[in-house]
Amino acid sequence: MASAHGDRVNLDDLPIRDDLRGKTPYGAPQIDVPVRLNTNENPYPPSPGLVGDLAEAVRAQAGELNRYPDRDATALRADLAAYLGHGLATEQVWAANGSNEVLQQILQAFGGHGRTAIGFEPSYSMHPIITGGTSTEWIQASRESDFSIDPGKAVAAIEEHRPDIVFLASPNNPTGTAQPLATIEAVLAAAPGVVVVDEAYAEFAREGTPSALTLLPAHPRLIVTRTMSKAFAMAGTRLGYLAAHPAVVQALLLVRLPYHLSTLTQTAARVALRHRAELLGTVDTLRRERDDTVAWLRSKDLRVADSDANFVLFGRFPDRRAVWEGLLERGVLIREVGPPEWLRVSIGTGEEMAAFRAALEGVL
Amino acid sequence: MASAHGDRVNLDDLPIRDDLRGKTPYGAPQIDVPVRLNTNENPYPPSPGLVGDLAEAVRAQAGELNRYPDRDATALRADLAAYLGHGLATEQVWAANGSNEVLQQILQAFGGHGRTAIGFEPSYSMHPIITGGTSTEWIQASRESDFSIDPGKAVAAIEEHRPDIVFLASPNNPTGTAQPLATIEAVLAAAPGVVVVDEAYAEFAREGTPSALTLLPAHPRLIVTRTMSKAFAMAGTRLGYLAAHPAVVQALLLVRLPYHLSTLTQTAARVALRHRAELLGTVDTLRRERDDTVAWLRSKDLRVADSDANFVLFGRFPDRRAVWEGLLERGVLIREVGPPEWLRVSIGTGEEMAAFRAALEGVL
Repeated sequence: MASAHGDRVNLDDLPIRDDLRGKTPYGAPQIDVPVRLNTNENPYPPSPGLVGDLAEAVRAQAGELNRYPDRDATALRADLAAYLGHGLATEQVWAANGSNEVLQQILQAFGGHGRTAIGFEPSYSMHPIITGGTSTEWIQASRESDFSIDPGKAVAAIEEHRPDIVFLASPNNPTGTAQPLATIEAVLAAAPGVVVVDEAYAEFAREGTPSALTLLPAHPRLIVTRTMSKAFAMAGTRLGYLAAHPAVVQALLLVRLPYHLSTLTQTAARVALRHRAELLGTVDTLRRERDDTVAWLRSKDLRVADSDANFVLFGRFPDRRAVWEGLLERGVLIREVGPPEWLRVSIGTGEEMAAFRAALEGVL
Repeated sequence: MASAHGDRVNLDDLPIRDDLRGKTPYGAPQIDVPVRLNTNENPYPPSPGLVGDLAEAVRAQAGELNRYPDRDATALRADLAAYLGHGLATEQVWAANGSNEVLQQILQAFGGHGRTAIGFEPSYSMHPIITGGTSTEWIQASRESDFSIDPGKAVAAIEEHRPDIVFLASPNNPTGTAQPLATIEAVLAAAPGVVVVDEAYAEFAREGTPSALTLLPAHPRLIVTRTMSKAFAMAGTRLGYLAAHPAVVQALLLVRLPYHLSTLTQTAARVALRHRAELLGTVDTLRRERDDTVAWLRSKDLRVADSDANFVLFGRFPDRRAVWEGLLERGVLIREVGPPEWLRVSIGTGEEMAAFRAALEGVL
């Protein structure tokens, strides 16, 4: 800035919303190290075949990039419905730029000033952040010491607070464990508003873990959110989606920004869905690696949460920062997140997990 | 939905926010007709050279789509700063999924419940919609009968209402005329909060029209928004951006959803910026076509607003719906938007404008 006036201004001088004062931007540190196991990315890159198909699909579409995208993303939503199964139809599916935007749209439609959302912490830290960003009041309920949710306590908390929105992450992040359907059903029976089951990691769940999608026919206020960032290995594409009653999708149409989903995003997501056999083929490998990681950490006398996801929460370390830094010094970046004394490691390739084990043995 | 329960539910039964009840989703009708002149798209598609470069850039990046995008879009913001000139640096530029998302982030940081935003209508209809979507109160000020803003009245309205955010679209949509810098400076001097000058159509302005970018050095609460959807002919890419004081960008980082801008969007926008000579080469053609359209409409004794944009507002038609439908019957889709008795036509190719003229002559 050329002027002395502008030079003197900093963030505190600007008339930002009061509840933003003193806050720092959300986000894991982006550090360039050999082994990155900190943001629950899928370590397996798309195959050359998928990359080629994507480049050709973009070539075929790009000649019309001067035109706005399909505002309703109808073809993509049809493909997502077909992928999800459970008899879902296009009008029950909605998509946006990452599940973050899906959650924000839900809060804009069903939350806002004077309304409340409840979550059971520790859980996904973006739930309270997006809640605050829409001026919705956040109510923090708790999990048991093993990170499970006690259905009776959950129902009591809902009856006490009468929240407009209930968040249930299943599998839960950062703890890793899926919720029994009975817990979700108890919450649905008690909740006066909408219930959001965040299934970002559903594809990684252990054998026999049912999806909340099975509950949709009987529950018009249930919303199940998903993402292509994890099992689908498409974090760079930013495609989140949900399944719900058609009326829920109609409500989101009232708050979505028109043309929110670019032609490129719609195209890339559809290519990825066509290649789902390849992309989801990595899930079994990652689940085996995850189960091995859980077993190995327990063999070291560490406490480890049961994991249905592509990450593992382990502890307890009175000085978890020292352990995190010790791993980083050895070229392994994990995440210092969640309950105190615990750390979260994303599941990488076999080589990356061997590097993690070696580094952790060095630290301990 | 399989259950009788779900079948009976409609939007009115859901606990949506009270201020959304009875509303319908925003958006121009998407009708498949030969001549689409309704959403201010650039009619010239990207060249085969650009399409090829984009496909190859996607091919080069897609092998890392399993990783999250650069959260801060640093390379893209540097390219945008270089394009804008005016001595702007990366930390003064921010980008999001269309200028709609840019505007929403501004409202989330500087507006919200208990705060107000003012605009001078008729203007871009998304300004009040996005304002309402963030629970900010909308204050409607008026333009003169020729759609200009009287600086004295604007200052008086700002002093009366003390808005947290002022919106000034220049060139204004749907009327088409740019604001004199003196008006913007008078508003800046009076405004207690931030002033957003929406320059979505700036590249189309008539010779000698200065950009509000020239005012940035002296005004740390000025925000100038732009888009690649219009002059850049990249509506399908959904890339909006802004220039402002670095502290404003820091404020937006507090409310942006992490990883909001996909790898594909960042890549495509950078390719388009590299091809800006080609893309912006259409601007002169469109300006000539626009000036010819203004002159032709005036030769038909119609009233026409001066246009610095790629569209023209014309009237007055006591029954504008009949004119709009008459054009549609003749295969020409324009927009029924803005002040009563006026219609807006986007500037298309020479052929498309000839079709528009022939159709309008048939209707009148």
